[in-house]
Amino acid sequence: MTDDIRLCRTFQTAPAAVPKDDSAKYLVSALEAEGFQAPDWLVPDMEDGTAPNMKAEGLENTIEKVPEYDFPGEIWPRVEWSYEDEEYCEKGRNQIDRLVSEIGDEIDGVVVPKVGRLEDVERAAEVVAEAEAEHGYEDGSIGLSIIIETGRARSDLREISKFGEDSRLTALVFGPVDYAAELGGRDLGDGMPRWDGLLEALSNEASAAGLLSIGGPFDDLFKERAGLTYYNADDYADQVEHEAQLGLDGSWSLYPKQTVQANTVHMPTPEELERDVSKIERFNEAKREGTGAVTLDGQMVDEATFKNFRNTVQQVRAIDDIRPAQTEEYYDEELLTRARELELSYN
Amino acid sequence: MTDDIRLCRTFQTAPAAVPKDDSAKYLVSALEAEGFQAPDWLVPDMEDGTAPNMKAEGLENTIEKVPEYDFPGEIWPRVEWSYEDEEYCEKGRNQIDRLVSEIGDEIDGVVVPKVGRLEDVERAAEVVAEAEAEHGYEDGSIGLSIIIETGRARSDLREISKFGEDSRLTALVFGPVDYAAELGGRDLGDGMPRWDGLLEALSNEASAAGLLSIGGPFDDLFKERAGLTYYNADDYADQVEHEAQLGLDGSWSLYPKQTVQANTVHMPTPEELERDVSKIERFNEAKREGTGAVTLDGQMVDEATFKNFRNTVQQVRAIDDIRPAQTEEYYDEELLTRARELELSYN
Amino acid sequence: MTDDIRLCRTFQTAPAAVPKDDSAKYLVSALEAEGFQAPDWLVPDMEDGTAPNMKAEGLENTIEKVPEYDFPGEIWPRVEWSYEDEEYCEKGRNQIDRLVSEIGDEIDGVVVPKVGRLEDVERAAEVVAEAEAEHGYEDGSIGLSIIIETGRARSDLREISKFGEDSRLTALVFGPVDYAAELGGRDLGDGMPRWDGLLEALSNEASAAGLLSIGGPFDDLFKERAGLTYYNADDYADQVEHEAQLGLDGSWSLYPKQTVQANTVHMPTPEELERDVSKIERFNEAKREGTGAVTLDGQMVDEATFKNFRNTVQQVRAIDDIRPAQTEEYYDEELLTRARELELSYN
Repeated sequence: MTDDIRLCRTFQTAPAAVPKDDSAKYLVSALEAEGFQAPDWLVPDMEDGTAPNMKAEGLENTIEKVPEYDFPGEIWPRVEWSYEDEEYCEKGRNQIDRLVSEIGDEIDGVVVPKVGRLEDVERAAEVVAEAEAEHGYEDGSIGLSIIIETGRARSDLREISKFGEDSRLTALVFGPVDYAAELGGRDLGDGMPRWDGLLEALSNEASAAGLLSIGGPFDDLFKERAGLTYYNADDYADQVEHEAQLGLDGSWSLYPKQTVQANTVHMPTPEELERDVSKIERFNEAKREGTGAVTLDGQMVDEATFKNFRNTVQQVRAIDDIRPAQTEEYYDEELLTRARELELSYN
Repeated sequence: MTDDIRLCRTFQTAPAAVPKDDSAKYLVSALEAEGFQAPDWLVPDMEDGTAPNMKAEGLENTIEKVPEYDFPGEIWPRVEWSYEDEEYCEKGRNQIDRLVSEIGDEIDGVVVPKVGRLEDVERAAEVVAEAEAEHGYEDGSIGLSIIIETGRARSDLREISKFGEDSRLTALVFGPVDYAAELGGRDLGDGMPRWDGLLEALSNEASAAGLLSIGGPFDDLFKERAGLTYYNADDYADQVEHEAQLGLDGSWSLYPKQTVQANTVHMPTPEELERDVSKIERFNEAKREGTGAVTLDGQMVDEATFKNFRNTVQQVRAIDDIRPAQTEEYYDEELLTRARELELSYN
Repeated sequence: MTDDIRLCRTFQTAPAAVPKDDSAKYLVSALEAEGFQAPDWLVPDMEDGTAPNMKAEGLENTIEKVPEYDFPGEIWPRVEWSYEDEEYCEKGRNQIDRLVSEIGDEIDGVVVPKVGRLEDVERAAEVVAEAEAEHGYEDGSIGLSIIIETGRARSDLREISKFGEDSRLTALVFGPVDYAAELGGRDLGDGMPRWDGLLEALSNEASAAGLLSIGGPFDDLFKERAGLTYYNADDYADQVEHEAQLGLDGSWSLYPKQTVQANTVHMPTPEELERDVSKIERFNEAKREGTGAVTLDGQMVDEATFKNFRNTVQQVRAIDDIRPAQTEEYYDEELLTRARELELSYN
């Protein structure tokens, strides 16, 4: 990681059209979100989140509404695609062409779902490249993120990621529902598997290739108990914390409350920041005294340990650069100043 | 998955010869099994399940007994092989040649154990192809399934599976005992590892290549407690349920009671079937009313969620096609009729 | 596994120089260790364990002290390296050249950290080959072990291991601290992830390629509770036992007490040895009576099961060959004699 971290703590999909009087209601609501409810990435969804008979309207809503707002994060519409159905690829090609043509300056890239093996990802990248060239955008200016939700994409994850090192590929996002359906996974009472092997590989391959890795959606939005239906905050937080522990860069949000939680978890806590700022300060002090490998609180600090402390500080600096309102709300002013002024080199 | 699912809920090995007056006792007993005791696949075992000095007799038993029964599932004899010992490969070559020559019409394929890297699997496939051609069978009519039980086969699992896309390869079966011995795994009181990474990869690669994936044998058949020795039903069920959750298609059985359990777990419960039939019925209803993405019981249903419900129904239909006695015993007649008549397309 | 097992139960790093009056204090102390405190491999550490301003002195200490002792295990100095920083590779090249030139007869190889993809490992191997040739050592006489601690090395683990089949590559050692920093893993209160997928792959790929696999360091050396600071024996033992269960050959030690624990865990317990010696004795007895597949204590014994029992005995024989003092202290004399005299072939 360098100081110019690309943030995607939250990958929030919003249906691009819903069967209400105002069909762009959820899209607009996400574009207008403030504070911790504002996602780092907003994904106007023309795929599974929008009903088949509303998809055309979803595309028009996206083209119309996105330019009306000065959204503080990135915009990544999700189009249709399927490695096993040419009809969906053709729809995706048309959606990408319209989006680049009409609002190419407003979007950071497109999200392509249900990709198969490497060849299918290369083909999706080529579709973006063609739209880019056709409408006069600079090569590489429109990004591509993909949903990893097929056995084939998981099988080729390493090869797809290596392709991503030198391409427009930006983020690898997990899609557990389609994935479980492909593999035939079953809920026998304890829920679906977490697919820990896949999550660990996603974090690793993304890291090795300089890509972002994002967890999958959590759709048990509400719980019912003792007569009350309420937002399922606990189970979503558990999932997001598990993803953060494994080094995923962000989490999928379906809902403003989920966005608040994912933004928060993927942000060091004040205690973490205090702890790691303090460790670096004490390490820098010991280094000036020339004692070399230092023991702090019973733990030996070498260059590797040091990098972990530095990650914490760099993530806070990146959030602070882009969303100063969030860091100002979350951290003590004096701590934030120490984090900003800290010397971060090991040698 | 399509409607023509290839069933292998149970991969039951039976020693092809045992040192008893009737050396084919267990083989015949498996061929005669009825109801839930009848495995989907019966594997007459000429490898580790049969003593070295009984293997020749096991081959003769298989050739003699299999044609005498109209076994309702598939027959897959397991022969000898070892990537690291040419002598075993030569034995396997002879066994495959005899089996195809004598009962090629009666068997669905052969199971080859202890394969190494891709090249070794290709060689085993070539041995089957040669026997097929030599004895006048159509290309591809004799299948090949392999036991994944060496570090090399695990290392090449993706490449082996990709080879399987266009070959006679049919099932990937886990062999944990040889595998643990190769890796040097140890039981320090909590048992051997479950090898979760391998199981997840097995499910994924098999799915990506259109192959079947089968779990490994569970050999703690009996428990002793308070003076009584009894069948270890709980621990085997735990293993089979874990495999089903991960999307493995079936489990290994060493014993008729294990076959009952594995057949049952890899079959949706009446509650699962009722739940998923009902969800599809309500989804179809909502779709007719044009509301698109639907919320059922607090969960959003999109095309991906829908596929999971459909898996349940398709598996029941496949069992019902082949073993109507089991589905009639297990499900309410009215529920089974609803499952048979349901419209299963998302759009 | 064959009878000539290469032992590395313990991979003990010792800082090659520390800022004390006697800067070689820890290195000498490890060279002099006796009994269970003596590691199988001693790693004089010129990388992260030694302060930047002490590294030159660490190299001189290693060159001076190692030849003064007749260390009973192997000596593997760790040099500097980084796939992403040419400056560290240049330092590593000079350190390797000096070590081979001055004490090439005293060391078994060098440990290279922070390797990247396969090409970087090949380059490190080439650096060792050049030093070997330059100073007149036979090709392959100086080994190479690497720390797997980057996303790239994990991504290429299979390819790196296959390269290791026919090269000087000897051991794959996990480096969790740098690894977590690369992936951005976070401790949210439950500690860092164990990276189970990586550990399982490490065990598998090492086994498939005939390499050793070694776990990562555990640096929470001390615990504080109720006013007392004490050695954290429990948590280290948990980690080492987990590694042993997965089939890793050894564990990393930072401290003599850790060496005692890792040496012990990676050595079959007297109960395991008694159990497996007894099972092989009873199996051999049954085999002589011709009953073939045998049931012992409710578990069927086939060739695969048998290999697991044999692993136990072979590991004890290997330790006994090299460190008879440890086996004499640990096992009953009569049991050790039985283990030595047992017939270990299945057929």
